[in-house]
Amino acid sequence: MSLLEQTIAAIPPALNQDAFAAAKDRLANQARPAGSLGIMEDISARMAAIKGTIDVKLTNKRIVTCAGDHGVAEEGVSLFPAEVTPQMVLNFAGNGASVNVIGNHAGALVKAADIGVNYDFDPSLPIFHKKIRYGTANFTKEPAMTRQEAIQSMEAGIQIVTELEQEAPLDLLGTGDMGIANTTPSSAIIAAFSGIPAASLTGRGTGITDAGLAHKVAVIEKGLALHAPDPKDPIDVLSKVGGLEIGGLAGLVIGAAARGIPVICDGLISTAGALIACELAPCAKQFLFASHKSVEIGHKYMHDRLGLDPLIDLKFRLGEGTGAAVCMELLDLATRILADIKTFEEVGISQAD
Amino acid sequence: MSLLEQTIAAIPPALNQDAFAAAKDRLANQARPAGSLGIMEDISARMAAIKGTIDVKLTNKRIVTCAGDHGVAEEGVSLFPAEVTPQMVLNFAGNGASVNVIGNHAGALVKAADIGVNYDFDPSLPIFHKKIRYGTANFTKEPAMTRQEAIQSMEAGIQIVTELEQEAPLDLLGTGDMGIANTTPSSAIIAAFSGIPAASLTGRGTGITDAGLAHKVAVIEKGLALHAPDPKDPIDVLSKVGGLEIGGLAGLVIGAAARGIPVICDGLISTAGALIACELAPCAKQFLFASHKSVEIGHKYMHDRLGLDPLIDLKFRLGEGTGAAVCMELLDLATRILADIKTFEEVGISQAD
Repeated sequence: MSLLEQTIAAIPPALNQDAFAAAKDRLANQARPAGSLGIMEDISARMAAIKGTIDVKLTNKRIVTCAGDHGVAEEGVSLFPAEVTPQMVLNFAGNGASVNVIGNHAGALVKAADIGVNYDFDPSLPIFHKKIRYGTANFTKEPAMTRQEAIQSMEAGIQIVTELEQEAPLDLLGTGDMGIANTTPSSAIIAAFSGIPAASLTGRGTGITDAGLAHKVAVIEKGLALHAPDPKDPIDVLSKVGGLEIGGLAGLVIGAAARGIPVICDGLISTAGALIACELAPCAKQFLFASHKSVEIGHKYMHDRLGLDPLIDLKFRLGEGTGAAVCMELLDLATRILADIKTFEEVGISQAD
Repeated sequence: MSLLEQTIAAIPPALNQDAFAAAKDRLANQARPAGSLGIMEDISARMAAIKGTIDVKLTNKRIVTCAGDHGVAEEGVSLFPAEVTPQMVLNFAGNGASVNVIGNHAGALVKAADIGVNYDFDPSLPIFHKKIRYGTANFTKEPAMTRQEAIQSMEAGIQIVTELEQEAPLDLLGTGDMGIANTTPSSAIIAAFSGIPAASLTGRGTGITDAGLAHKVAVIEKGLALHAPDPKDPIDVLSKVGGLEIGGLAGLVIGAAARGIPVICDGLISTAGALIACELAPCAKQFLFASHKSVEIGHKYMHDRLGLDPLIDLKFRLGEGTGAAVCMELLDLATRILADIKTFEEVGISQAD
């Protein structure tokens, strides 16, 4: 079996139901109206089921921002030039980017990963050096990558989780992305799986005009028509219209799930990776939390397909892992709500009729 | 002039426009697509305008949970018996309640305030002892309180801000409430101001049934019909159908605004207090942030009237200051986003076309 197959086979088929029941029981008996902490209660119970305890401590939190370039950028689908991808990787490594600031605030270490950037980074740069190739091919002309490269990009993500765990047991993983033009392959991926027309689920990315949006939709339609990716074969979808960093992001989800590590998933691109992961390995979904609702409309269709409700809607459209980083604090808080709020019995307060 | 009048007169008529412009400029030049951090950008710019600097530090954060009892509780509008109000105040003082756990997580000190609880607390209990009377009267029979008591309840809130500032300069104030049956007066207040029928804006509070909800609507309609509170006179509204803790909450907002302190407002009851404050002193609105969108439908009408968008929607319906506490971390984060994310110039990255 390949590393990918082995890792998928290692994902637990179910969570700890005893811990889940104990969590539900404690939540129902806390000195407050039943259900009054809404979504935070659901999160805390699922986290208990993942970790097998009602006193979960999310101490070691990491965010991995996977980067890759996109041949389709030459079609003019983004406002920014492709050289911004490596520039931003250097910015992540220098701790000055948005995800660094938000991650630091959440107590999470942020590290970028080169899965397929069209640039040779200094090998001493503190990033994960996992380059599969120098960016994808332009999918309006040829498949974005080979099937073997798609598998390799996912295995790069799996290896990153292994390396993180070798440093210290990982309590929570956040995903993020960088890759100029990468909302285009992400929208193509959800279109391929769902069959929904590209025009209904494609957004403006970094902020293109109406004409730019119409062009982007046409580019996605051309790629889908040319390659007819098979929605029952997620590796085919990834290789035909995907991205190397998207494969890396799928690998992060699969690798974390196989080790029982919860994953908080960022915006459109990270969720495209999570979607590839969960189409391949549905049990990975148990370990996955959606962070924010992106301004990108395709994000909603991804969440619908994954059966996940995003926690917040702050009108973000940035990626990098910024939404995941914001929500790490909420996951942390959910664990405290479950463990630390006292029950009626513990404080001697009258219950509801 | 009374303390209330003096404090209202001290609220600045405008925020610092130079700091606001500097914030907008920095946000527009950070190395990310313009506007990509959505609502967090708006918050950070307003916070800069409040504080007069683009490097705001929200170090000293406090949550004040105002408590009071309600004569209308005898109409059977809540699932919980009225003795829960003092029991929960003791729970807040013992640091075991929901708002304590969430406040502690946000680095905020939580302190309850007795504005009108029907119980004699030990004077050594670490709460603000500001009792005006032992709960309101049942507003289906007589006004909830006198006009003078309404003013006193607001002045209690103002005094609490003064006392907090005497301990240490306050960077951010969160509001919260405790008072069995207090969604009933809160719904009555927004009905009185907006003219919207009680049936359209009354929710289930701690979780009453359909029949309980119909009864609660009838109770509110009876109170409004009996007293005809004048929507142009917020003190009249507060005294006729309000609550002592709601007056205290209004006073917190007015007292904080007069000192230039930002306030993050919790759920239905806290927002009812903020509404009284802003109807009396519209400039207070500049210092006010809405935290979460409550499950209580009246909350939406309050936010509409205040012109505020809540930051999160986690399906909370608890009060105490829990939503405000969750959002304190987001306000804190917004200040870091503005100050710490590097600009294109600072990191030498290519800009958009």
